[in-house]
Amino acid sequence: MRLSILIYDGFTTLDAIGGYEVLARLPGMETEFVAAQRGIVAADTRRLGLAAFRDFSELKSTDILYVPGGPGGLALEKDEAFLDTIRRLDKTSTWTVGICNGVGLLAAAGLLKGREATTNWFYQDRLRAWGTEFVAERYHRDGKYITGAGVSASIDTGLFLTSLIAGEQVAKTLQLGIEYYPAPPFPEQGPEDVAIEIQERVRGFEAEGGKRQLAQEPAFKGMFEVARATA
Amino acid sequence: MRLSILIYDGFTTLDAIGGYEVLARLPGMETEFVAAQRGIVAADTRRLGLAAFRDFSELKSTDILYVPGGPGGLALEKDEAFLDTIRRLDKTSTWTVGICNGVGLLAAAGLLKGREATTNWFYQDRLRAWGTEFVAERYHRDGKYITGAGVSASIDTGLFLTSLIAGEQVAKTLQLGIEYYPAPPFPEQGPEDVAIEIQERVRGFEAEGGKRQLAQEPAFKGMFEVARATA
Repeated sequence: MRLSILIYDGFTTLDAIGGYEVLARLPGMETEFVAAQRGIVAADTRRLGLAAFRDFSELKSTDILYVPGGPGGLALEKDEAFLDTIRRLDKTSTWTVGICNGVGLLAAAGLLKGREATTNWFYQDRLRAWGTEFVAERYHRDGKYITGAGVSASIDTGLFLTSLIAGEQVAKTLQLGIEYYPAPPFPEQGPEDVAIEIQERVRGFEAEGGKRQLAQEPAFKGMFEVARATA
Repeated sequence: MRLSILIYDGFTTLDAIGGYEVLARLPGMETEFVAAQRGIVAADTRRLGLAAFRDFSELKSTDILYVPGGPGGLALEKDEAFLDTIRRLDKTSTWTVGICNGVGLLAAAGLLKGREATTNWFYQDRLRAWGTEFVAERYHRDGKYITGAGVSASIDTGLFLTSLIAGEQVAKTLQLGIEYYPAPPFPEQGPEDVAIEIQERVRGFEAEGGKRQLAQEPAFKGMFEVARATA
């Protein structure tokens, strides 16, 4: 079984790695990191680079199409070449996964029309524009479409998908493998549980901070061949 | 403030990325991925490569020394050059962090003698050999030494350290930023809560599976300059 994680300039690393760390451990899984071009893809912080070792043209089909979010994903909602790649791979995928605003990329590609999905906390209202109903869940399944809430929800989503693919015993084995028995230091149970001033600070960052981040050069520019997801 | 995440051939990605995704978002944090050599460092799965854009010799000091675990870390317990780097950077660090069997690397470097620490579930018994007392916690502080349990515990640990550095309000802001309100699909609360046959399967993998993984060539060999942590 093949897992293809699509990465792009300005993705959020944990969106990708949470699901990867579970799904790539499934026996027989062939995992690949894929981008528009081969090269080092810079994450949103510009301080982390991940190797994309296949490009979109090399990828004829896959079993699990996995699209993370991140501030760089917002521009891709209008990138027809990127959306075409998603549409093409989705045609024959067994599962199509979106995390955080990566769900918006699936929606922008037209894959979630008339479907239910979850996404991150500040992106919820945008799903409706693509004819998708938001459901407030950590992860959600609608047919072959598996969607996850923000960033760290990629772990829960990966474990859920593992249980669908390989059963509960295997999923619990991988859960122990990554010791996912979380104990966050603060008792808040969800975004709505957080003080309003903190909610506003995060909304402010999501609106502006992502652009500021992406305006910075990657720390490793000039050392590695840095791939850009957009032409 | 500088955060230096040490990576090496065969590290476990989520050990590094869970803490990174929190700490690198702290305003003013200068984050770097550092290895024995500059280059692409292959994770344990051999399907993921991370760019180390500084090498140990370039790193004169740091504020947060962060050492993840992974099957590749076991060999480094006897790598005096690697341990010397940890000792050297620890001398002036404000915080020294170990996750999973990365805690064993701090211990092997002699930094945790007479101290308390947590580590991953299957590594617990090994800490005693270095004069370190294991405490069964998700994360633990002993002076400037912050230790975390296995793999995904890096997130909880990163949030805890953030609260020490910048206070609870900032930590809660970052918690919302990565939406860390976990809801794992299975109700188990810890390793001991998992069925014995699953525990045995994971112990078997930890004993042998890591070696099998590391014997594989990285999928991206020949495409990128792959760095090896050991000489």
